[in-house]
Amino acid sequence: MRESEVIERLRRIATAPEARGLLDDVAVLDGFVITHDTIAEGVHFLPQDPPASVGWKLVTVNLSDLAAKGATPAGALLSLTISGPGEWELAFLGGIEAACESYGLPLVGGDTIALPLGAPRVLGMTLIGRAGPHVPERAGGQPGDVLWLVGTVGDAAAGLALLLVDANATGALVDIYRRPIPQLGAGLALAPEAHAMMDVSDGLLIDARRMAEASGCGIAIVLDPLPLSSAFVAERGQDLRARLFAATGGDDYALLAAFPPDLDPSTLCLPTATRITRIGTMTAAGPRISLSFAGEPVALPERLGFEHLGDHDRGLSAPPMADRP
Amino acid sequence: MRESEVIERLRRIATAPEARGLLDDVAVLDGFVITHDTIAEGVHFLPQDPPASVGWKLVTVNLSDLAAKGATPAGALLSLTISGPGEWELAFLGGIEAACESYGLPLVGGDTIALPLGAPRVLGMTLIGRAGPHVPERAGGQPGDVLWLVGTVGDAAAGLALLLVDANATGALVDIYRRPIPQLGAGLALAPEAHAMMDVSDGLLIDARRMAEASGCGIAIVLDPLPLSSAFVAERGQDLRARLFAATGGDDYALLAAFPPDLDPSTLCLPTATRITRIGTMTAAGPRISLSFAGEPVALPERLGFEHLGDHDRGLSAPPMADRP
Repeated sequence: MRESEVIERLRRIATAPEARGLLDDVAVLDGFVITHDTIAEGVHFLPQDPPASVGWKLVTVNLSDLAAKGATPAGALLSLTISGPGEWELAFLGGIEAACESYGLPLVGGDTIALPLGAPRVLGMTLIGRAGPHVPERAGGQPGDVLWLVGTVGDAAAGLALLLVDANATGALVDIYRRPIPQLGAGLALAPEAHAMMDVSDGLLIDARRMAEASGCGIAIVLDPLPLSSAFVAERGQDLRARLFAATGGDDYALLAAFPPDLDPSTLCLPTATRITRIGTMTAAGPRISLSFAGEPVALPERLGFEHLGDHDRGLSAPPMADRP
Repeated sequence: MRESEVIERLRRIATAPEARGLLDDVAVLDGFVITHDTIAEGVHFLPQDPPASVGWKLVTVNLSDLAAKGATPAGALLSLTISGPGEWELAFLGGIEAACESYGLPLVGGDTIALPLGAPRVLGMTLIGRAGPHVPERAGGQPGDVLWLVGTVGDAAAGLALLLVDANATGALVDIYRRPIPQLGAGLALAPEAHAMMDVSDGLLIDARRMAEASGCGIAIVLDPLPLSSAFVAERGQDLRARLFAATGGDDYALLAAFPPDLDPSTLCLPTATRITRIGTMTAAGPRISLSFAGEPVALPERLGFEHLGDHDRGLSAPPMADRP
């Protein structure tokens, strides 16, 4: 018996068209885009993580799933477990409230339960968004499409690496790891024209491979233009090794989108200062994913990003700590 | 620090009108009725409970929340944790699938995560329903309204009592405890005319008191017509003691509704064999809840039903085992 059987079973149950074969992080129902993420203490966050940042992250990574579908947030339902005297939960709710306020997201319901003594906390959030004129699937990429990335990659992974060395580390990279910024405005602008779009939560390479698999294409990524922040470059440099770290790091919450070659998405009505970068192309043949740098092919790293239980789990709020480098 | 502070904090965050002050088990958003329930192993179900019945119950008690608002089920999102090798989860999914099929409910998404070794399972479900022409609140009752009950009470509590004596007990009462039947058709028919409606999940008396509190009224319940099933009467009798057991038992998933006195809801287009019973009235003055039997007032029992963490928690899928008699 393996976990993959459980995921297989789920797929056989979720046969309605609204489920999109569980191939997207969202369901699409009558003009609404709906997503749910669950995180567990000791798996997706650690007991010593600041509870407010856990709350912030639960909201914003869910918002990132809506961003990837060009949806406008309409409401959130929180599944809260209480374990212990309540201080942790109050601080956690402070993070929930701050993120909801920042993104104009009303908390409209949910459920609160007590857990048995000592049980790890399990926190869930359902987000409901209003769909735009087109809800791009992960599966819509076509050979010849150009692959674009919104945002930067590697910052959160670099921040986590700093925290693993020193739990009290601070700075821009730690901030981005703890408080991801969902690309809602960019998603809204890009979705009507995108052939395929998804958020990069587990690592650019693994998520790009998922888009390639869902679309039945290959993806060729060029590492030279990979968008890196100045904080990342200051910490890790920008050589091939740093680029591979950034492309496999996870927790980025950038957007990955495929557009027809005759459309330059940077000319769409994007929020000021949106960083959007052409990083590759979709191919009819060849491997699902291939890399090049400085004009030479690059071997795929052994680990492309965070593997979870299966495809059903791609909406996770944070990579399992156990998988982390 | 107490759990009630956590609930208070949640209320202060959930100020949008769609949240209905967290006074209902549902949020109402653009023609959709949305509800979420979370259940934990060791709290709402026991490790030795049949996993398929846990799955069935998670779906049907959520459906009961939609029934109470006259909504039509449109889709479900499942939050599944995997703890152990997966056999339990496969059987649980069998129950989820059976209930979804029975009620024409498509599973459209969710999230699956692994838990740390030995952690109790925490399972959640978000249901989305299409609202009818009127979504009755819990708070809509008015003095002079007549209180009606759809279904019977006491069966599930009697079934649980049998299971607590003999974990292998079987029969109609055990079946009803394990496989509640949501009153979807009746809810759909009654909602357009009901001043207030809710499902009875924690016990008739405690839930009626909640309706009275939300509506700013009193409720006078007459125990003589209390609807009891023949299986219940065969097991427990129908004297005052049996009636108080039934009225405080919980897990009934009956509907409680307030109608103006000039409307007889039994004349509405209810599903065949729907049992609908007039059990009391809403009052302008007097205590929140009062009882009578055989023409005499009856003192309130010390325990009116299952108390959870607070009002936010009324959507619970099952009463905490720890509270049970």
